[in-house]
Amino acid sequence: MKAILVIADGLGGRPTDFNGKTCLEAASTPNLDELAGKGINGILYPIRPGVRPGSDTAHLSIFGYDPYKFYTGRGVFEALGVGMEVKEGDICFRTNFATIKEDFTLLDRRAGRIKEGTKELENALHKLDELYKDVRIIFKASVEHRGVLILRGRNLSHQISDADPHKTGVKIEGAKPLVDDDKAKRTAEIVNRIIKESYRLLKDHPINLERKKKGALPANVILPRGASIKIKMPSLKELYGIKGIAVAGGALYIGIARAVGLEIRKAEGATGRADTNVINKMKVAIEGLKQADFAFIHIKGADSCAHDRDAEAKIRFIEKIDEGIGYLMDNVDWGETHIAFTGDHSTPIAFGDHSADPVPIVISGPNVVKDEVKEFNERSALKGGLGKINGNVVPILFGYCDWLEKYGT
Amino acid sequence: MKAILVIADGLGGRPTDFNGKTCLEAASTPNLDELAGKGINGILYPIRPGVRPGSDTAHLSIFGYDPYKFYTGRGVFEALGVGMEVKEGDICFRTNFATIKEDFTLLDRRAGRIKEGTKELENALHKLDELYKDVRIIFKASVEHRGVLILRGRNLSHQISDADPHKTGVKIEGAKPLVDDDKAKRTAEIVNRIIKESYRLLKDHPINLERKKKGALPANVILPRGASIKIKMPSLKELYGIKGIAVAGGALYIGIARAVGLEIRKAEGATGRADTNVINKMKVAIEGLKQADFAFIHIKGADSCAHDRDAEAKIRFIEKIDEGIGYLMDNVDWGETHIAFTGDHSTPIAFGDHSADPVPIVISGPNVVKDEVKEFNERSALKGGLGKINGNVVPILFGYCDWLEKYGT
Repeated sequence: MKAILVIADGLGGRPTDFNGKTCLEAASTPNLDELAGKGINGILYPIRPGVRPGSDTAHLSIFGYDPYKFYTGRGVFEALGVGMEVKEGDICFRTNFATIKEDFTLLDRRAGRIKEGTKELENALHKLDELYKDVRIIFKASVEHRGVLILRGRNLSHQISDADPHKTGVKIEGAKPLVDDDKAKRTAEIVNRIIKESYRLLKDHPINLERKKKGALPANVILPRGASIKIKMPSLKELYGIKGIAVAGGALYIGIARAVGLEIRKAEGATGRADTNVINKMKVAIEGLKQADFAFIHIKGADSCAHDRDAEAKIRFIEKIDEGIGYLMDNVDWGETHIAFTGDHSTPIAFGDHSADPVPIVISGPNVVKDEVKEFNERSALKGGLGKINGNVVPILFGYCDWLEKYGT
Repeated sequence: MKAILVIADGLGGRPTDFNGKTCLEAASTPNLDELAGKGINGILYPIRPGVRPGSDTAHLSIFGYDPYKFYTGRGVFEALGVGMEVKEGDICFRTNFATIKEDFTLLDRRAGRIKEGTKELENALHKLDELYKDVRIIFKASVEHRGVLILRGRNLSHQISDADPHKTGVKIEGAKPLVDDDKAKRTAEIVNRIIKESYRLLKDHPINLERKKKGALPANVILPRGASIKIKMPSLKELYGIKGIAVAGGALYIGIARAVGLEIRKAEGATGRADTNVINKMKVAIEGLKQADFAFIHIKGADSCAHDRDAEAKIRFIEKIDEGIGYLMDNVDWGETHIAFTGDHSTPIAFGDHSADPVPIVISGPNVVKDEVKEFNERSALKGGLGKINGNVVPILFGYCDWLEKYGT
């Protein structure tokens, strides 16, 4: 048996999206409708009713991991997502290259949206690792001004505030302990020393001297935020004995996939934007399923369009996803495959951000008891046979594949 | 955006209520049916299936507060409901003025349902506060024989039994510790000393001498029951950043509303009985919403009729609520308002008390994906798109208003 989970980020919407219809209702989706007609449909609350999910907490919950137990912040997943090794107990941060004045007044949170030379800056920052004998300090630059910082050692805590003040024109006061605890105090001190040291290492770096010459803002400091601690999570392989792959572009989604033990496969032309090549993602997944049992495919575009409040772009992108689903349906062995399709949350057009509204879900395959739903959207799914579920899509999907351990005898 | 929650106390019923119909089915409710047709419907288990709720625990759960965490007894909410200031750690009791003989045999639990003079008796009882240096003793008379007692100090416990024996003809043995713990022992001793001292202060009080002269039973003691401790609860404002008001008459409902940080608004003619003026409550709510984001309206009458096992009265009262809903619907801005209507529990006629049966719920407003339900009652709600929810009506309602913090990123 094979299992496929396709998550269309930010898929769900509201009647206010487009002339009284949700984008999903307004889009022409013959393939999704066919999938709905072949399967069991329902309503997914990514976490539970009355909770407005982030993409990270929603994905964990959909994969069957209680975010209230396993989520301590985004840093861990970003670190995994940019390919770093993360060990249990590591404290992970998202960072920005930023521009400060000599007196540490913040001038630009993104160092003029620096695009090039960050690898060289990262190399200079490898010296940070010499600051402490008993704490490893690992920094990696990722895309543009973004990066990840890991602290590894004993007696560290993730309960510290953001060093990034999130606004310009103010002096950087550094991270502060959020609890009255020696570990948190020490971690805040380390982070604040790293910030000072990063300024010392970066301010006269050739890349920055070059930038100044061109009138660009120097990337002369790193500002960590979103401290989180890596908690032990059992992998899908440990839990279900299966081999899984993930086709995803964004660092966060790659990070979550790595955290649950999926192997990452890259698809050509998968940009994470509206111009992404959805069909190529499906091809890579189908190819990967020759060796693997489970494929997770993450498609970002619909969420991005909705964050931009662009209903027509979201509708077009949903139609592109529909083509991808058509390709998938044409290329799987229906007698041996279960497919789940849903979103990780809703992103209504007028709100332009994640909402607490649930999203429709369909699961199709040979072991599914079909319901009478014939269309795939927020309204038709209300009558689906799956009813309302809270997260846990992967365990439900794997149940149809007979991959669950028996609980009891 | 504005949000309105209308709770009709004891709304739900059973087919045994009235000729094979529930009272809600038997009643003519064109406005509720219209509200159902405009919205998403479902079934609310006030706490969860298989739990028979009190009005207090049900309301907490509906407001999104886990009663297993935040509910320690009714006293706290009664104290808040009669307008007292309650601090974290305060031990609160409901009390009755009662009549005892000199040997402390209980003659009447309600002092002949005393109606007048209780304010003077309260004034005499202010002397109780002199009993201990380190424990504040605050008493307030409320309606008829009822009152509230607060103990404030260190090393107190709510884990003591009722001093009220709940039957006449027996000697009052006083409160007993429910756990083997110095705090509980001490609190029981304090309560028992208060009972004795109240007798000393009240037995020859002019009000009682007057009552005796008229052949009425003297209110010569107070009997505390339902010890509970005030736990810190985050307010709706702290949780969601909104300003809310409550239009409620009963002390318990006012108390719960104050506990979650709502401002209390009184409606003229709101009696808490079947003769209450529902329309006036709606008017006060709509007026209040000019300054506030959220209005909670509590309507008691249906529950009282059902406790009296009077199906026809309950049906008539539901029709009165329906008129109120009509007024509300005529006077809100539909593009900017979400309305939730439900009950806090069922009170079936034949049982005459709260049952574990769920209650129908509807939420209407611009961001709601409508289902196909066209009537509002226990049976039609079974097919609603909201499915079955356990409490948490306020977080779900606020989700439609985009007032929830994102959990994760």
